[in-house]
Amino acid sequence: MPRITSARTLDVRAPTSRTLAGSDAVHQDPDYSGAYVFLATDGPHEGVGMTFTIGRGNDLCCAAIDQLAPLVVGRDLAELVADTAGMWRRLTNDGQLRWLGPEKGVIHLATAALVNAVWDLWAKVEAKPLWRLVCDLSPEQFVDAVDFRYLTDVLDRDQALDLLRARAPTRAGRIAELERDGYPAYITSAGWLGYDEQTVRDLCREALADGWRCFKTKVGIDVAADVRRCELMREEIGDAALMADANQVWDVDEAIAWMRHLEPFGLRWIEEPTSPDDVLGHAAIRRAVAPVGVATGEHAANRVIFKQLMQAGAIDYCQIDACRLGGVNEVLAVLLLAARFGVPVCPHAGGLGLCEYVQHLSAIDYVCVSGSLDDRTAEFADHCHEHFVHPATIRNARYVMPTAPGYSVDMHPESYAELTYPGGRVWQ
Amino acid sequence: MPRITSARTLDVRAPTSRTLAGSDAVHQDPDYSGAYVFLATDGPHEGVGMTFTIGRGNDLCCAAIDQLAPLVVGRDLAELVADTAGMWRRLTNDGQLRWLGPEKGVIHLATAALVNAVWDLWAKVEAKPLWRLVCDLSPEQFVDAVDFRYLTDVLDRDQALDLLRARAPTRAGRIAELERDGYPAYITSAGWLGYDEQTVRDLCREALADGWRCFKTKVGIDVAADVRRCELMREEIGDAALMADANQVWDVDEAIAWMRHLEPFGLRWIEEPTSPDDVLGHAAIRRAVAPVGVATGEHAANRVIFKQLMQAGAIDYCQIDACRLGGVNEVLAVLLLAARFGVPVCPHAGGLGLCEYVQHLSAIDYVCVSGSLDDRTAEFADHCHEHFVHPATIRNARYVMPTAPGYSVDMHPESYAELTYPGGRVWQ
Repeated sequence: MPRITSARTLDVRAPTSRTLAGSDAVHQDPDYSGAYVFLATDGPHEGVGMTFTIGRGNDLCCAAIDQLAPLVVGRDLAELVADTAGMWRRLTNDGQLRWLGPEKGVIHLATAALVNAVWDLWAKVEAKPLWRLVCDLSPEQFVDAVDFRYLTDVLDRDQALDLLRARAPTRAGRIAELERDGYPAYITSAGWLGYDEQTVRDLCREALADGWRCFKTKVGIDVAADVRRCELMREEIGDAALMADANQVWDVDEAIAWMRHLEPFGLRWIEEPTSPDDVLGHAAIRRAVAPVGVATGEHAANRVIFKQLMQAGAIDYCQIDACRLGGVNEVLAVLLLAARFGVPVCPHAGGLGLCEYVQHLSAIDYVCVSGSLDDRTAEFADHCHEHFVHPATIRNARYVMPTAPGYSVDMHPESYAELTYPGGRVWQ
Repeated sequence: MPRITSARTLDVRAPTSRTLAGSDAVHQDPDYSGAYVFLATDGPHEGVGMTFTIGRGNDLCCAAIDQLAPLVVGRDLAELVADTAGMWRRLTNDGQLRWLGPEKGVIHLATAALVNAVWDLWAKVEAKPLWRLVCDLSPEQFVDAVDFRYLTDVLDRDQALDLLRARAPTRAGRIAELERDGYPAYITSAGWLGYDEQTVRDLCREALADGWRCFKTKVGIDVAADVRRCELMREEIGDAALMADANQVWDVDEAIAWMRHLEPFGLRWIEEPTSPDDVLGHAAIRRAVAPVGVATGEHAANRVIFKQLMQAGAIDYCQIDACRLGGVNEVLAVLLLAARFGVPVCPHAGGLGLCEYVQHLSAIDYVCVSGSLDDRTAEFADHCHEHFVHPATIRNARYVMPTAPGYSVDMHPESYAELTYPGGRVWQ
């Protein structure tokens, strides 16, 4: 296995705000961005990782990656993968840098990029897509990748092992199923808040024609507009599943009152109804809006927030984010927590590179952890995939399982050149 | 009132790790640091603000301040102070930068520096120390400084107004009392984890001789060493109040088990027993370790975490931090929450500039919000004060109320020069 010899960062931004793709109640002009890190080695492979942001501040993530990088540069990959939980603990517990979080915000987003790059490198060296690398780990190796710190009051290593061992004998069948059928997805591209009525109708029709049966819309600025949006989407999609996403815009009581207006539309879930830190608030909302489910997680800072969301019975759907959590290791921890509490994992995606990432994570969840597709669906939005060497691919409204070695966020050289901020062509 | 014409940042770091001042179970080599911002104006005054870190990554906070600064530069102070809650909402809800938090980590630490600088400027223009500026606001003006977003399920503007109005008629008496007697404090300088036994004994004796009657020690690495540390401090300080601080080192069940060993020492509180994000974990610990109190907050990311700590009955003491929260405005919100739930506020301090800040905040709490000194004590540690133009001053183990205009973190020009990282003399 190679040695990591250096790390280089790159500030990559796509000018998505020009079309209002990705716009919602609180993020009205997102430029889908990736703070990239490239781990050079003394072998033929390069580890590529990223964290996702929506524009300004992406450079702060690059700078934070630069500060954390010495914790992996100079190390043998063999040493790192023999104890990835140890690597993760070092990255999240630098005696000085942890003050900036701990385990949240810029420093944690940067941790994700580095951790994801190490896993990408490992998968490339093993010549496997990341999801297959993880699905080929033994239950013991899987739990060795998890830092159980702050989780042991609800889930310790032995309980996690039991859970993984119970699924291990039937892994092969689920791998074959995924390779044949893919992983179920839903589409957000039709419902961005900034889109006008006709655009939404057109996009719904296109999506239906493409086989989509599960849709999401943005809500939260104007209740009458939300009702209208839900009406027209229902007109277009019939009784297909419809979810709504408020992107943190409401207070607790406001969320409950607002959702009464959306009762007629049979929503499957309301997503991010309030502050992502408000575990008890989500629990109160969930009690009030049932049978509509509550979903959150794309802004849940770390596994400790997810632990509490589940302890408090605050969510029906667990929306992991591949970059908000501290990379693969912490995602594995949250998959285990979700299985322990019986909460289905429906990853957040859409933004640059996130679809490429979550297809692996949902596959790992199904094969190794949950063993179920019930109530599971991974987000998809059809933006920016053209930049990736191995883009996420959808067939029959399902993610086609990636086959290329690695963790799928390598871009074409010309895309890096085009999207580099501020020097790239699109920013001139 | 002046117009803010430009903002400049400075990375200031004191090499405290060389003496192990500030060392604890998870921060073993802190260099007390301030990410400073200087708001130049077209008048005679400069607004000075800072956020506190412990070394590496302080530059990330400076860079984040630079990104937020355009939201205040070019504005008239009169416009900003007419709606400081609006200013705060703009700083915390930039459509792209908020992704980096929201309201946590580097971007929120940076928010604090800028917000504190605006309040400093306002106080200088009014020729008042910050605490007097706030104590001279009407209840209406006070609540106008608070962003109640995400709080209204437990505290809305009208309830806050009622609370402040009830205290308003008796403010003058409390102001006079504080100006005469100061605000009660406790001392942490004796108990840093890296100190040897004799150093701790010597520091306890010195502190007792100086009139201190309330002490804190660090714990959490080795239970036998903690028992020994508590024994020797009890030997030295007799029945004076003793608190212990674990700095997030334990899991929930581990905290409960560990605290059984410290039962003989009659601790007033255990501070940061587990992850600062774990509201439900703190609640479980509190139930188990009573009558020892639970204290936390120096790493509570924002008012939403504090809201839940109080809703869940998780804390006996609310340890606001002047820089972890998003500056004066969000501190005022948490003071109101604490009064609403009847939880005493005992600010975190010690690090560079924090003592200078919290003396103002405790005074505001007493005069305007809580109206009580019962169970209240503000942290003090005797490090780095020599760098400040108007350093925090202790007399009879109480903070002497500041009288100089502003918010007290201006340093001597030679201290800025000496501590600037990496160019300053101490870093050569």
